[in-house]
Amino acid sequence: MKAQLPRWAFLFPGPATLPLTDPAMTIRHFLNTQDWSRPDLDALLAQAHVFKRERLGDQLRGKSIALVFFNPSMRTRTSFELGAFHLGGHAVVLQPGKDAWPIEFDLGTVMDGEAEEHVAEVARVLGRYVDLIGVRAFPKFVDWSVDREDRVLRSFARYSPVPVINMETITHPCQELAHVMALQEHFGNPGAPATDLRGRKFVLTWTYHPKPLNTAVANSALTIATRMGMDVTLLCPTPEYVLDRRYMEWAERNAGESGGSLRVSHDIEGSYAGADVVYAKSWGALPYFGNWAPEKPIRDRYRHFIVDEQKMALTNDAVFSHCLPLRRNVKATDAVMDSPRCIAIEEAENRLHVQKAIMATLAGS
Amino acid sequence: MKAQLPRWAFLFPGPATLPLTDPAMTIRHFLNTQDWSRPDLDALLAQAHVFKRERLGDQLRGKSIALVFFNPSMRTRTSFELGAFHLGGHAVVLQPGKDAWPIEFDLGTVMDGEAEEHVAEVARVLGRYVDLIGVRAFPKFVDWSVDREDRVLRSFARYSPVPVINMETITHPCQELAHVMALQEHFGNPGAPATDLRGRKFVLTWTYHPKPLNTAVANSALTIATRMGMDVTLLCPTPEYVLDRRYMEWAERNAGESGGSLRVSHDIEGSYAGADVVYAKSWGALPYFGNWAPEKPIRDRYRHFIVDEQKMALTNDAVFSHCLPLRRNVKATDAVMDSPRCIAIEEAENRLHVQKAIMATLAGS
Amino acid sequence: MKAQLPRWAFLFPGPATLPLTDPAMTIRHFLNTQDWSRPDLDALLAQAHVFKRERLGDQLRGKSIALVFFNPSMRTRTSFELGAFHLGGHAVVLQPGKDAWPIEFDLGTVMDGEAEEHVAEVARVLGRYVDLIGVRAFPKFVDWSVDREDRVLRSFARYSPVPVINMETITHPCQELAHVMALQEHFGNPGAPATDLRGRKFVLTWTYHPKPLNTAVANSALTIATRMGMDVTLLCPTPEYVLDRRYMEWAERNAGESGGSLRVSHDIEGSYAGADVVYAKSWGALPYFGNWAPEKPIRDRYRHFIVDEQKMALTNDAVFSHCLPLRRNVKATDAVMDSPRCIAIEEAENRLHVQKAIMATLAGS
Repeated sequence: MKAQLPRWAFLFPGPATLPLTDPAMTIRHFLNTQDWSRPDLDALLAQAHVFKRERLGDQLRGKSIALVFFNPSMRTRTSFELGAFHLGGHAVVLQPGKDAWPIEFDLGTVMDGEAEEHVAEVARVLGRYVDLIGVRAFPKFVDWSVDREDRVLRSFARYSPVPVINMETITHPCQELAHVMALQEHFGNPGAPATDLRGRKFVLTWTYHPKPLNTAVANSALTIATRMGMDVTLLCPTPEYVLDRRYMEWAERNAGESGGSLRVSHDIEGSYAGADVVYAKSWGALPYFGNWAPEKPIRDRYRHFIVDEQKMALTNDAVFSHCLPLRRNVKATDAVMDSPRCIAIEEAENRLHVQKAIMATLAGS
Repeated sequence: MKAQLPRWAFLFPGPATLPLTDPAMTIRHFLNTQDWSRPDLDALLAQAHVFKRERLGDQLRGKSIALVFFNPSMRTRTSFELGAFHLGGHAVVLQPGKDAWPIEFDLGTVMDGEAEEHVAEVARVLGRYVDLIGVRAFPKFVDWSVDREDRVLRSFARYSPVPVINMETITHPCQELAHVMALQEHFGNPGAPATDLRGRKFVLTWTYHPKPLNTAVANSALTIATRMGMDVTLLCPTPEYVLDRRYMEWAERNAGESGGSLRVSHDIEGSYAGADVVYAKSWGALPYFGNWAPEKPIRDRYRHFIVDEQKMALTNDAVFSHCLPLRRNVKATDAVMDSPRCIAIEEAENRLHVQKAIMATLAGS
Repeated sequence: MKAQLPRWAFLFPGPATLPLTDPAMTIRHFLNTQDWSRPDLDALLAQAHVFKRERLGDQLRGKSIALVFFNPSMRTRTSFELGAFHLGGHAVVLQPGKDAWPIEFDLGTVMDGEAEEHVAEVARVLGRYVDLIGVRAFPKFVDWSVDREDRVLRSFARYSPVPVINMETITHPCQELAHVMALQEHFGNPGAPATDLRGRKFVLTWTYHPKPLNTAVANSALTIATRMGMDVTLLCPTPEYVLDRRYMEWAERNAGESGGSLRVSHDIEGSYAGADVVYAKSWGALPYFGNWAPEKPIRDRYRHFIVDEQKMALTNDAVFSHCLPLRRNVKATDAVMDSPRCIAIEEAENRLHVQKAIMATLAGS
């Protein structure tokens, strides 16, 4: 179906929406859930539920994955590394610019700067050693029109002879599946992968954080919640905190196809009212991207977006989650985090299971 | 039996002795040997002797340990990582604040500083991924009344759903067992775990080092040597170098229960005379903790505490050991280190075997 | 046979040639190909070709290697780590001074500086934990007469009770075998290890790089190309870029024994004419070692040594290779790198296979 006209203004003067995947790609990567069909995503989730019941397998026996971290990680690294181990494989952890060489991504450059190596060689050589490549590369937070091209991830996908997995760049698709899996566990029978989430009221609420953070998890939350047919509210302080047009359009299209809905709201009480799921995330407003000084006082005015018991009391006994790491008493109160309605730990655990499903699927056969 | 009144003054004006383990803990951790019964410690040592003869096993098949290093490591990391591998398991190495997020340990804090994550989430999430968590966290060397609470280790133990192992904080219990194992090998039949060390004359000698070091290994040496019933002398330059009251009291109590003894001496010749074991370690004097400038000239006056052949000649053909790393010709001379009476390499090797015993015991069944 | 008198001047006023291996060593290390007989090198290559066809084995089952990196790495670490995994073993990655202690290498020192530990203890303890030790230690670039002693590698070899592998110091013997293997694949039947390279015209060309780099790969290229009986030209801008006398003498001697030849040239066209192999590398001129300011304008004048299509057109349809990392359009143009005659990716892949052969050979009962 055609993308609908957005019902909100885009305050970021960015370029038109670009596809994030190269149509010429013949290798199947896991760059965004949006590239995958709903049945294929459901199959990944079904496999993840199986792995949660039975940890060990031999789907990756003798196989390996390179985990390329341009940014630090705790959960991502641990869950990928152990996931590979559980299935008989091995993960190699690389940190370019730290314990490996800095890398060039532009084509045709005369490489007389800092970078000692081009991604073409990095990806091609790694692809000779391993069966899968995971890439974590956050934005540089200088120019969103550059960062939104997801250049590092796409460069690896372009040159790699083996499948590439997004370990968080400007989206975080592994987190998406882990979140959906936790919701399926909560709303369905235990371990029931087919649990239908359609019609659930899902609130993605912006929260305060002292720094302007990446929009990746927010982009991903909108994308997957609409994909699953939920009625999604993006709650944020002002129109400036609306997400990039690409993800708003994905969410619009998804809602249209799945029978869900998408709206933007700046009204806290109205958004929480009757919610089944409250998902929290902080991010910097795109119109101030790379010029954060004037955004800081705006952000500071909205500390009251913190998820607390008063707000949660407005919901339909909603579950609360967050991708972690979470600053307690800044993004959510201790009471919310320690409540039995908090499924953030379950979601974090599910990273292990969904990533094993992704690795086993991509490296299989 | 009741703790005896100490025969030495405590110059550090610290708070009263606190238990280091939470009585409400239901999970069995390895935080200090003092929490473990003597038969249970003997069982660990017996298992370690078995692992030294037969490296490979499947006691950790498909299981994993997270090694959380707040401070660097060479032996500890290598021995834990290989120990897990030898038994079919896998170790994930994490360095918070370096290649993972900085962590908050206080409760109820509004986390608007540097820490991105609370230990409650870190420990709970890791506990979903792994079967064991090892923690290395040295003191911060600012305020001993804070450091002596062993907050990082105890926080992990409090929140973790899986057993936690002390990889050196303000004590170093893995080193204790490795040292005892090396003494059993030396004084007993090869591989004889039941070798009785009672009645051996054990000297823990302070040595010079240009920096004020952690008291962890010294605390541990006193604790385990008295536990094993040895006649223990703490040799140090002045009363200011006596260890924290908690460990002096543990050692007193242990000596009373095991039939050993404990004394403090500042007399080098008298201490070495007739010794069976000389164990060296440097540490900063607690009364100057966090205010090291005035301690430096005191420490500098005692460079002659170095372990050398002249001093070793006073002993009962004693064995010498040290936990490593050791600055040659500062803590001990080349001649002592390269002598056949030096069992420091053996002790270091034994780290591998005792840690395998600890991991297999805690993660088993 | 006797070493011939060199036909070139040595502009570096260094000491006379020293042996790099201690004749008293009883353990077989892999420090330089020059220490290994030609049949033994051929056996390693034959094993590497087998591993390329069949990745998995159990030659290192339950065994381990410590990879000690004093300098960063991507390919080396990944290929060693995966090589161990493929054969049932495990690699532990250590970075002294970064996530391990800084190390002292001199004998008899009073260690009151930065180093917390002597290599004697490091090597002896590691040798209790692992079956093999790999060492990467680049020159310090201050004093070539110091760096050319290869002290870090030789110290490990001296103290280690297990075989030591050179992962690049002032030579790079693993790269040598990977390169030869790629040439054998190119000039022979696929997977034909016995492919004879005698009589091939081999050009090692210096290229520009903004920094004065290590001569290790250049030393190694001369060593192995002459060993294999090729007709070798060292193409460099001026006599100042001739390599250290030790490696020139090795190459001379090798050429004499293998029936190949060695010459030095500063003539680009003459060197490329009729070449079968063009191997590129940049390095700093030894007479300016540690005093790089006056070398910089000299180096800057020779940017035209870049490998490009015009130069490659002069050859006998030569293959091009480089050890990587390579700065595109500085050392070689995009066209050369992306040409089917470029075998740099194949050579990089072969690192995996030759290193597995080396590890399996050295660690095997």
